[in-house]
Amino acid sequence: MITRMSSLFLRTLREDPADAEVPSHKLLVRAGYIRRVAPGVYSWLPLGLRVLRNVETVVREEMNAIGAQELSFPALLPREPYETTNRWTEYGDSLFRLKDRKGADMLLGPTHEEMFTATVKDLYSSYKDFPVTLYQIQTKYRDEERPRAGILRGREFVMKDSYSFDMSDEGLEESYQKHRVAYQRIFDRLGVKYAICAATSGAMGGSASEEFLAISENGEDTFVSATDGDYAANVEAVVTQPGVEKPIDGQPAAVVHETPDAVTIAALVEWAKSVGIQAEAKDTLKCLAVKVRKPGEEWELTGVLLPGDREADMKRLEASFEPAEVALLEPEDFAKYPFLVKGYIGPKGLADNGVTVLADPRVVAGTSWITGADQANHHVVGMVCGRDFTPDGFIEVAEVREGDPAPEGMGTLTLERGIEIGHIFQLGRKYTEAMDVQILDQNGKTAVPTMGSYGIGVSRLVAVLAEQMHDDKGLVWPAEVAPFQVHVAVANKDEAAGKAAEELATALSAAGVEVLIDDRPKVSPGVKFKDAELLGTPFAVILGRSFADGKVEIRVRGGETLEIAYDEALAKIQELL
Amino acid sequence: MITRMSSLFLRTLREDPADAEVPSHKLLVRAGYIRRVAPGVYSWLPLGLRVLRNVETVVREEMNAIGAQELSFPALLPREPYETTNRWTEYGDSLFRLKDRKGADMLLGPTHEEMFTATVKDLYSSYKDFPVTLYQIQTKYRDEERPRAGILRGREFVMKDSYSFDMSDEGLEESYQKHRVAYQRIFDRLGVKYAICAATSGAMGGSASEEFLAISENGEDTFVSATDGDYAANVEAVVTQPGVEKPIDGQPAAVVHETPDAVTIAALVEWAKSVGIQAEAKDTLKCLAVKVRKPGEEWELTGVLLPGDREADMKRLEASFEPAEVALLEPEDFAKYPFLVKGYIGPKGLADNGVTVLADPRVVAGTSWITGADQANHHVVGMVCGRDFTPDGFIEVAEVREGDPAPEGMGTLTLERGIEIGHIFQLGRKYTEAMDVQILDQNGKTAVPTMGSYGIGVSRLVAVLAEQMHDDKGLVWPAEVAPFQVHVAVANKDEAAGKAAEELATALSAAGVEVLIDDRPKVSPGVKFKDAELLGTPFAVILGRSFADGKVEIRVRGGETLEIAYDEALAKIQELL
Repeated sequence: MITRMSSLFLRTLREDPADAEVPSHKLLVRAGYIRRVAPGVYSWLPLGLRVLRNVETVVREEMNAIGAQELSFPALLPREPYETTNRWTEYGDSLFRLKDRKGADMLLGPTHEEMFTATVKDLYSSYKDFPVTLYQIQTKYRDEERPRAGILRGREFVMKDSYSFDMSDEGLEESYQKHRVAYQRIFDRLGVKYAICAATSGAMGGSASEEFLAISENGEDTFVSATDGDYAANVEAVVTQPGVEKPIDGQPAAVVHETPDAVTIAALVEWAKSVGIQAEAKDTLKCLAVKVRKPGEEWELTGVLLPGDREADMKRLEASFEPAEVALLEPEDFAKYPFLVKGYIGPKGLADNGVTVLADPRVVAGTSWITGADQANHHVVGMVCGRDFTPDGFIEVAEVREGDPAPEGMGTLTLERGIEIGHIFQLGRKYTEAMDVQILDQNGKTAVPTMGSYGIGVSRLVAVLAEQMHDDKGLVWPAEVAPFQVHVAVANKDEAAGKAAEELATALSAAGVEVLIDDRPKVSPGVKFKDAELLGTPFAVILGRSFADGKVEIRVRGGETLEIAYDEALAKIQELL
Repeated sequence: MITRMSSLFLRTLREDPADAEVPSHKLLVRAGYIRRVAPGVYSWLPLGLRVLRNVETVVREEMNAIGAQELSFPALLPREPYETTNRWTEYGDSLFRLKDRKGADMLLGPTHEEMFTATVKDLYSSYKDFPVTLYQIQTKYRDEERPRAGILRGREFVMKDSYSFDMSDEGLEESYQKHRVAYQRIFDRLGVKYAICAATSGAMGGSASEEFLAISENGEDTFVSATDGDYAANVEAVVTQPGVEKPIDGQPAAVVHETPDAVTIAALVEWAKSVGIQAEAKDTLKCLAVKVRKPGEEWELTGVLLPGDREADMKRLEASFEPAEVALLEPEDFAKYPFLVKGYIGPKGLADNGVTVLADPRVVAGTSWITGADQANHHVVGMVCGRDFTPDGFIEVAEVREGDPAPEGMGTLTLERGIEIGHIFQLGRKYTEAMDVQILDQNGKTAVPTMGSYGIGVSRLVAVLAEQMHDDKGLVWPAEVAPFQVHVAVANKDEAAGKAAEELATALSAAGVEVLIDDRPKVSPGVKFKDAELLGTPFAVILGRSFADGKVEIRVRGGETLEIAYDEALAKIQELL
């Protein structure tokens, strides 16, 4: 089809919008792709809608290719199913809740596990119906605390969410792998640069889960990758390489010292230096007292040990305890446990009082530490793990640093930033059990199917593509998602040039190419070129001065410029496409 | 593409759902096209989604063909623009309102005039940018008091809404006509039986507006059509053929009679008979006292006269006064106006007390009436219009009846029922003025563009098609919107039949036909045939007993059955399609 710039509903802006911080947000607004309506709520103008639909098409084709079946659930949902799974409450402020005219509680769907599960329960009853994978490409709602960066983190957004239902764990693994391959195909077709990151360490029995992160310095998520191997992981999922065990025999006994006011690691190291003890921050042991609450249980005091040169990473701490909640102690907690001497907590005091103590994997048998002596203004030097204290287990809580060792033989870790574009997750039976899905198996007994849950941020991908593919002049779309493949600009006032441009556009359109023709009569060539670059169409054909000699320019967006004969332009573009 | 019944996410039901009253609702649920989630809120299962998308495609193609440009606004909207136009309040209980986490008022868009207007204001500033027509195909929300009939009147539904912006009234007329033609093309392509009904009588200065009503006995709207001409109108828009004027001279003088307890028309006619006056209900004159409030003004008492044999049609009454509100009198109103004697109100008392009196168009000069005498237990006989009373104007309020005269030369009126599927409306400058859209015209002065507003109920059309096209066995889809064009059913256990069915399906698919193959191994032919009929695919190919002789059956859904050679099946289906 041919679209005409003279009538296209578009106004490009020379200035960045005041509220925009990242390039994709600035450029998508300036180039007239999206328009802000409310915080985190955007309209899709004609160009933006074309890109969004093109992304949807790629996602749909690859989902269909793995046998997933498309359906569409409402966005406006009743409270009851979300009550059954407790998510009506769990979602907290992120859920848009409303009442209908009869006072019934409703919500705007943030994700649809409940609906898919209820529908499978409703329609299917025999193992013969399984496996089945269902998906939708649908508008979702989350009342984000900080909507940001235009459509990168919106409150109304388009997602592809799919769910697999299998009768066996092996079946789930197979469905999961199919999705993993489909996701790779989707992101490869779109030309996104991404990493597949392990999303759970598995330390606390979590199921397999991976995130697809688009690599971007403006990403909110930090992930690590190995310098020398195929390994990437969320910071939450990084598995610390264990410390090296040392012999305990022969190590000097632990000695308590008076350490007035040494309530920080820096002050402690300073004190050690002052008394002639060779020690750095990494030789000290931080003892963090936290409280942990398993679902349906009471808060329980727990000790966490980590080398003094590392901060605790709250995200890692929370991920490690999931599904239990974890929180730092309040003043009243300290009052409750008088053996916790703030600034001087040590592993011995915790253990002596029956508190579970979990340690960073570097705290192994034979390692010796300077740590709190469980009394004010005192520390103990030479506390040897396995002799003076023994952790009840290990935990991933220490911050991850650039240069930390990668898994065996893969060099060291590099820290990168990314934007989550996909997530695949072996969900298991959480929802099918909560919603009591009973299926007859081969033996005539009932069984509960196991689920996988898989998401792609479809509207977010439009921002991600803009984020990864732009230069200082504007957007640089890959041909597969570009609103138009070819931008024909007439920059020659000769009537023949205008006519030739129309003919070329018609021929391209007949060949199935989406063409935008800049036919604005009173607009200068300079403005036309600037707009073409800003809009980011992969190929621009310019009928300028050299058209008098029968020549046109083909400008590859973000690449070279060719001058060729007008008569060869059609064939050349088809070749380039 | 080929879809396999063995893995299709579908369960057909033999029983009608308990809450379904109309055929489309029953069949769409039974055939597994839709599934109820909450009152007026439905999921689109794979088959339903295919039909919905096919309808969307037809709508989109025809909208693009008239140069309308597609964009997409959010469904979640801020309160402010709807406050500007007062619709935040005017919408009453039909609007889904909610608050976000920061307490800001938001709504789910029931229609998007405000958003389109604001966007045009934002992007355009010169007459050169006009005309422009924009549209979206989008999910909308209305908290209907009585959601009904499945997706026929839902609370979450898909609509195509478009808006034209023109600098002149002639331009608006042109945009309106373009839409009218596009709508005819859309409904013709879909095979809907419909009428285009005048939607406003224009009596009170309303702008041009027409409704497209699908003809259906289960429709909520009543409309009239002429027995002998191309005329159809909403009941609200029917223009009453005026009465015939008669000479006043020579008519007997009005005489007041005592008519004890004759507070109903029937009692009045009975009384007349008892005193030897030849009169029927149509010779009496009802005097209705109502109150009317123009926007921003006070309630004002108004008299409405109509022949005694007709009830007042509240919908017609309301439409006639729009945009003013109209209401029946409350007891306290009667107390306020002592000259209103309930049951005995007459035109003279109203006029004598300065009340505006509007009459049915049949009440013309020289017509003589029996009517109230403005005192209890008294009526007056021989009240002649133009002599004893003179209405201040005419009004359309009387009920319309089958057999009433149609406009000049078109015979009489027939009453029919329909379902609104489209509405085109010359909206004018209501929103552009409210939102202060100022555009520079050719003379460098500012002008306010005029708008047209045009809607199609896209998801409702799926129900309408099912309503108009079904039989007692199931749905009967037209090929353009059917989820599949061909349903191949194997009803022969011979392996060769299964193989031949697969080959035929592959050949059809390669030819661009959407094929559903019923490959379920353990399902009886009878069940397969029943399902094929219920699903309503236009053509079914049955490989049954006669396949042993190289033959297949082609069953045209809702039509004939052909038996032809297997080898000719592909060509025959292509010919039928």
